[in-house]
Amino acid sequence: MEKSKGEETKQRMLDKTAELLRTQGYHGTGLKQILEESHTPRGSLYFHFPGGKEQLAAQAVADSGARMQLLLRDIAASAGSPGEAIDAMFEEMGRQLQQSGWTEGCPIATLALEMCPYSEEIQEMCAETFRGWEFVLAELLERSGLDHEKAEDTATFMLSVFEGAMLLARTHESLQPLENARTMLRLMVANVGRNDVHIAAAE
Amino acid sequence: MEKSKGEETKQRMLDKTAELLRTQGYHGTGLKQILEESHTPRGSLYFHFPGGKEQLAAQAVADSGARMQLLLRDIAASAGSPGEAIDAMFEEMGRQLQQSGWTEGCPIATLALEMCPYSEEIQEMCAETFRGWEFVLAELLERSGLDHEKAEDTATFMLSVFEGAMLLARTHESLQPLENARTMLRLMVANVGRNDVHIAAAE
Repeated sequence: MEKSKGEETKQRMLDKTAELLRTQGYHGTGLKQILEESHTPRGSLYFHFPGGKEQLAAQAVADSGARMQLLLRDIAASAGSPGEAIDAMFEEMGRQLQQSGWTEGCPIATLALEMCPYSEEIQEMCAETFRGWEFVLAELLERSGLDHEKAEDTATFMLSVFEGAMLLARTHESLQPLENARTMLRLMVANVGRNDVHIAAAE
Repeated sequence: MEKSKGEETKQRMLDKTAELLRTQGYHGTGLKQILEESHTPRGSLYFHFPGGKEQLAAQAVADSGARMQLLLRDIAASAGSPGEAIDAMFEEMGRQLQQSGWTEGCPIATLALEMCPYSEEIQEMCAETFRGWEFVLAELLERSGLDHEKAEDTATFMLSVFEGAMLLARTHESLQPLENARTMLRLMVANVGRNDVHIAAAE
């Protein structure tokens, strides 16, 4: 009973931290705000996260990264083709950005840019999270007939496009960069079954 | 004489701010550090930037964005083809990231993610900066035969790829995401003269 309550408190802190990191980044989020908004006493923080804010942030990244990976996997599983999956992924990104007033982009990009050069713990967790997402995208492409190496390369490229388009959408407060990226990636995977993907001029 | 010294002081503050925003982001950069490292008294800050940190950051973005735009324009002008320009741009991004120990990625991405939803002044300056870079990329593509609208769409997509690939490179501390993106974009513009760009399976 006691333990379960502790676990609840811990999860509440992780959820609030993930939310604040996503919308405000690492340096913009103080421990005070995390504790206040998750209704947690300061003692619980150092009990559950003896490494303090850095450890809390790294675990919150792992948590929200895993949730995003499940969401991507669900979308990939229920889509009829890679093209449909791409449409659904961009739709989800656009919905989250727009509904949040352009504050909810990638859950870890802000933190990654702020902290990767300065915290090995956070850098490793961000890198692992991105690799997890790439894995889902590569699986999607491989299931559709692309060979393994090509699928991995294309997945890395897709993730770059997702991340860059979310940054531009957030900055311009517009869905247009997402729509642009969606169109280009849809064309890229249109004939993915032929086992090669490249970008060429139309005949 | 007096005025020229004031302008020097102002530029020194802007340069230091741009440098720190690039490597540490907005919230990670305190006014104290800017003043100390640019050897400027606090009074000069509010004399030149009555709007304080927010105004200083917005003008530093405009400054470093303009410098980056000139660099992109130089690369575009001296390259023999859009493909060569893309190679040279990725080489420059990779060089800056690697030589700085993965701290010098996009000069404004961290700030844009941190601040766009919360500061209209910074959001407008970031949006304008990105538009300036897109303009150079669109010009490059248009000069090579792509029609205007297609060139603009492709330029937006290229910038998304640049931004996403720099984020992944910085996180993984690896040139691989840049190399991957370079290869894909080179293929995309390989036949740009035929006046259409799409991504399709190889025959």
